[in-house]
This record gives sequence, structure tokens and C-alpha cells, in this order.
Amino acid sequence: MADLLNFVALSLLPPWCWRVAADWLRRGDPPDSVLRRLLAACARNEPDRSSAARSLAADAIRRAESASVTAIPWSDAAYPVALTTLADPPPVLWTRGRVAALSAPAVAIVGSRAASPYGLAVAEQLAGDLAACGLAIVSGLARGVDSAAHRGALAAGGVTVAVLGSGVDVIYPPEHASLAKAIDEDGAVISEFVPGTGPQPWFFPLRNRIISGLSRAVVVIEAGEKSGSLITARCALDQGRDVLAVPGNVLSGRNRGAHGLLRDGAKIVESADDILEELGVRGVRPEVGVRPRLTLTSDPTPSTDPVFDCLVPGEACDLDAISERSGLPSPRLLPRLFELELQGLVRRVGGGRFVRVHRTC
Amino acid sequence: MADLLNFVALSLLPPWCWRVAADWLRRGDPPDSVLRRLLAACARNEPDRSSAARSLAADAIRRAESASVTAIPWSDAAYPVALTTLADPPPVLWTRGRVAALSAPAVAIVGSRAASPYGLAVAEQLAGDLAACGLAIVSGLARGVDSAAHRGALAAGGVTVAVLGSGVDVIYPPEHASLAKAIDEDGAVISEFVPGTGPQPWFFPLRNRIISGLSRAVVVIEAGEKSGSLITARCALDQGRDVLAVPGNVLSGRNRGAHGLLRDGAKIVESADDILEELGVRGVRPEVGVRPRLTLTSDPTPSTDPVFDCLVPGEACDLDAISERSGLPSPRLLPRLFELELQGLVRRVGGGRFVRVHRTC
Repeated sequence: MADLLNFVALSLLPPWCWRVAADWLRRGDPPDSVLRRLLAACARNEPDRSSAARSLAADAIRRAESASVTAIPWSDAAYPVALTTLADPPPVLWTRGRVAALSAPAVAIVGSRAASPYGLAVAEQLAGDLAACGLAIVSGLARGVDSAAHRGALAAGGVTVAVLGSGVDVIYPPEHASLAKAIDEDGAVISEFVPGTGPQPWFFPLRNRIISGLSRAVVVIEAGEKSGSLITARCALDQGRDVLAVPGNVLSGRNRGAHGLLRDGAKIVESADDILEELGVRGVRPEVGVRPRLTLTSDPTPSTDPVFDCLVPGEACDLDAISERSGLPSPRLLPRLFELELQGLVRRVGGGRFVRVHRTC
Repeated sequence: MADLLNFVALSLLPPWCWRVAADWLRRGDPPDSVLRRLLAACARNEPDRSSAARSLAADAIRRAESASVTAIPWSDAAYPVALTTLADPPPVLWTRGRVAALSAPAVAIVGSRAASPYGLAVAEQLAGDLAACGLAIVSGLARGVDSAAHRGALAAGGVTVAVLGSGVDVIYPPEHASLAKAIDEDGAVISEFVPGTGPQPWFFPLRNRIISGLSRAVVVIEAGEKSGSLITARCALDQGRDVLAVPGNVLSGRNRGAHGLLRDGAKIVESADDILEELGVRGVRPEVGVRPRLTLTSDPTPSTDPVFDCLVPGEACDLDAISERSGLPSPRLLPRLFELELQGLVRRVGGGRFVRVHRTC
């Protein structure tokens, strides 16, 4: 609880602090010490700020509890491992719905808020096909492509995660309140902003890094030249995620951003198979009543896998340690760790660390 | 005339002979000797075949004359230099309209015969914009994208060249007879098949190599998975031409071939500017009543140009000699020679040879 309070207080600091906080936490500094030093740096002339921040944090935690919102701090085992690799991970994820949804292998589908019927149809179809293969669909609950992607995943009986640019109890746009409720059932609605926070224009570019960060790939549909989806694509590239784009009409101007991504080397998407192929996974469409699942196209051989080999059963390692031992940079480690986790060979523990599973059979 | 007769007779031999004929002609063998040896190889047991071939050739030439069709043999100065670089250039080009149109810098626009309104609109717009910038538009006079491209070029007051899979006096499809007539005005309708030849399914893949061969780049619009346009794109790659493709709807299946090309590295086309940029040229839209023209984006400096430098005024060189002297492979030579020709610094002479222009000013 004390840890949570410190993490929530950290999340109330300006965004530039999160990167510093993550650096210090990663090297093992306790959260209260990180908070104290950052508060001192942010508010030299406001000695009361520390207690004020903790008080605001306590209010937020109480508000969350009363609204059945789960707070997942960075140190929690349930904190999505994908986000621990970000330079500026959110100190806390406020979560509605199923926390486990955040750990599923995921693909983000993002695009225009003013999408054409074509864009909406493609988003819904891709999301449905991917969800049916066991991938979680991450998007931003916005009008247009985002909500079509969520709906497509739900229609396929799959899992979807909505990342908001407001508190999880302040649904924006308001007409998506029922969609958010439907997502809660099997998926999750999350935000880094404390409950009660209203949407602000500058929150949306920030939350985009979480959409891409949670995902193994970002698929862009109908992004214009100045679309926010291009920010998500940029975040994905910075985070070492794959970027893919759906082509479309060249006369409407609706696809300039997506085509620009293709020009810059993004993979072209015509169907879910293109995405599965890029991820190196093979989706298995489940029979009715059976949970979707995902298998690797190339059967892994953990005994010769440098990532698996450098983990010792029972010893939890963070990404830096695994990177040092395996010689692989963090962005390349993550997909491999995902796969090992899916196979039940590796398990995540608190603080973004991984442990090799000891198998007796 | 004797030369023409031999070349026409060569064109009546099976297509595999043309590659051999080109090799022998390039090394300086006279056409009558090439014809004699190929006839001997093709028809060992038919000693009369030589005179029969010459007789058929003479008939074809007479038919062409009476139909105002110009026969341009490989040895003619008017034979398009772009085709001389092909492994299997047509021995003769039968031409309606303006022969000079065959020497303009050109772009091919090809695609589906059963194009959607979107495909037709894009073809017409791209062709019009490129033609207005001084590029000739080459296509196959087919239904759909081909005819839309011809029409777009004509509407812009530009030059267009139709390459047929039948004789130039046997227009296929028949409803394009008036389009062919309109093309004759400022452009050309050409074929490698002697006048009177009806369309045959296996003629079309053959003529596709001429569409790409005449052009500096091939733009594919709405090619399905088994579209003939993909043969043209393949020819273009073999010939060292650029291949570009227009994206479109991923749900209709109409664009699978074009998207496949993009996946394989073709440049994405949203507007004529993308094509001009790929060619390294800047189109200048003419004022009313002024002929379209084309300028180089980077001002050439002939005095430091390896292609220009290796040519001696008054001495005609073929591509092999220029390649040897300049150290550049033929596919790279051709665009440069085009540009030097456009600037009036180099002139084509017979037999696919080039000569540096002696300037007195």
C-alpha cells in the first residue's frame, strides 16, 4: 500500500519525471526515495508538496476503490511486462475489467476518428480475425477506427484493451460508455491518469505510447497526414515494435499517413495473415466454445535459445541483466520473452523481472 | 528496302529466334546473313522457306504501305533506342501516327481490364498529370486501365503510345478504334506483328515486354493476382525499368497484384509527383499553347558525366561500347542517354548507336 501511494504520487508529477523515475527504480532505488528526490527537484520552493502529493495520491486510490478500479503500480507482478521496457513507463496503470488481459500477446489497431466505411470495415475484420487467433486487440476507444477495432475483437469473442486519455471512469467520447462496459467483460479499460481526470488534448499523444507499448505490432488504418495514429506508429518504432499499414484509396487523401508509413518501410497489410506472419506466429481459429490460442510458426528450441539459456530457474532477472547475459538489446528480448512466457517456460514477477520456470516433468 | 525485307522476314520467325537475331545483329552480322542462318536452323527440311519468308515479308510491307503504316526496322535511326537494350527486341515496329512519339521519355500505365471506377479515375489522372509534364504514356489499348491512361494523356494534350497484341490495322477490342485514331494524331499505335495479324492470347504477354521496354517506369493500377500487368511488371524488372504500384482497397481483391508488387519493393504511387521523383525528373506544366517539357531535377554537368565523356563527337557507339568505356551496365546507361538526348547533347543514329553532338556555340 505504501508502495502504491508512492507510485501514484509519482504519476502525478510532470511526464518528464517518469523517465527519470524509471531509471532510478530500475537501478534499485526505493519508490519513496525516488519520489522524495523528484519532488525536491520539481518544487524546490514548495516544501509541503511532498505531503500534498501523497494526500492527492491517497484520494485517488480511495476514489479508485469506490469505483472498482484496480491500481497496478510498476512494482506489481500484474504490471504488463511489455510496458516495463519503455523509457517512460506509466508509474501506475488504473484498470477496469480483467487485469490478466494486459498480459496477453497484443496487436494495436489505430486510425482515423473520421474513418470511411472502408476503414471501419477493415478495422473490424482485422481485429476480429486477430482476436479469433488469440491476440488481444489494443486501441484507444476513439471514434472511427479505434472503436471499430474494439468491436471487431468483441464480436469474435476475443480480448480487447482500451487505453484512455482520461481517467478510466471518465469515458471519452461519452457515447462509448457502453462499449467500454462491454470491453470490461473479457478485456480491460486502462489509463495512466488517476480516476476522475478529464480528457485533455495533450493526454492523447502521451497515452499513444501505452497503446504501442502494450503491443507487439501497431497496424495503422486510414491515417491522414497529421493523424494521431502516426504518433502511435512513431512510438512503436522508438519502442522496437513492428509497424504495419493498410493501404487504400489514393484520391481521397484519407490514407496519406498510412501510405507514408508504407513508403518508409512499414509492412503492407491486406489481411490478418500478413500481421501474423510479421509476428512469426500462427493463429489457430478455435472451435466454438474453445478459447482462442496462439502458436509459434517455428517451433522454438529453448535449450538452444540464448534468452532462455541465460535464465537460471528461481533467479529473477530484469531486462538489463538478461540483455547483458544474452548479448541481445532490450527491444529484441521482449518478443522472445513473450513467446517463452506463452509456452510456460518463463514467468514474470514483480518489478519487470523474469524467472525461468522449473519444470519437474 | 532490302534491309527492311530481311527484318520483316526475321519478325515472322518464332519469337525465340529474335533473341538470337539480336545477338548476331549486335555483333555486326548483316541482316540477310542472320535471316539465312536462322531459317536454316528453323526449317532444315524446307529449303523453300527462305523465299517464302521473303515473299510473306514483301506482302506485309505492301499491305502496310497501302494502309499508311510505317515499318521501322531495328536498323533504322527512328527505331526507339529504349528497345535496342532488350534481349529480344522486335525486328520491326509497325507504326501508325507519329514515329517521333516513340522517342519521347515515357512511362507505362497498365492494369486491370475490369477496373473499378477508382482504378479508371486514378489511371486517367496520373496519365494526364504525367503527360502534361512532357512524358509520353505507353499502354496496351485494352479495356479498363489501359484505355483510361490513353484517354487521360489525350485529355491533357499530351502524347500517348498504344502497343497492340495484333496488327496495327486490326484494333482490339474493336470499340477502341476511335481511341486508336485519336492516339494517331500526336502519338502512335504500334505493333511487332505484321499488318493484318489478328489478336491471339499468346501475343499479349509478348507485347507486354514492348510496353515496359519503351518506358522508363511501369505503373501498375488494380492488378489482380493473375493480372497480365504483372507480366509487364516482371518484364520491366528484367529490363532494369522502375516498377511502381498504386495501392487501393484491400477488401475487394482487385489490388492483390499491385499490393504484392509493393510488398516486393515497388514504389508506392499516390500522385504523379511520386513517379517524377522516382525518375529523377521534374515536370513543368506548360502554359496554354506551349508544348509540355521535362527538366532534370539535378542540373546535369555533362563535362563530368561519365556517359557523355566517353562519347567522341562524330563517332557512333553502341550500348556495349559505351558500357565498356563508361564502366556502367546497360540498364543504368539508358536513362542517362535519354537525358543527354533530351538536352540535345547526344543523338541516336541507326542500329541503336549514339553519337555526341558537336556544338559550335
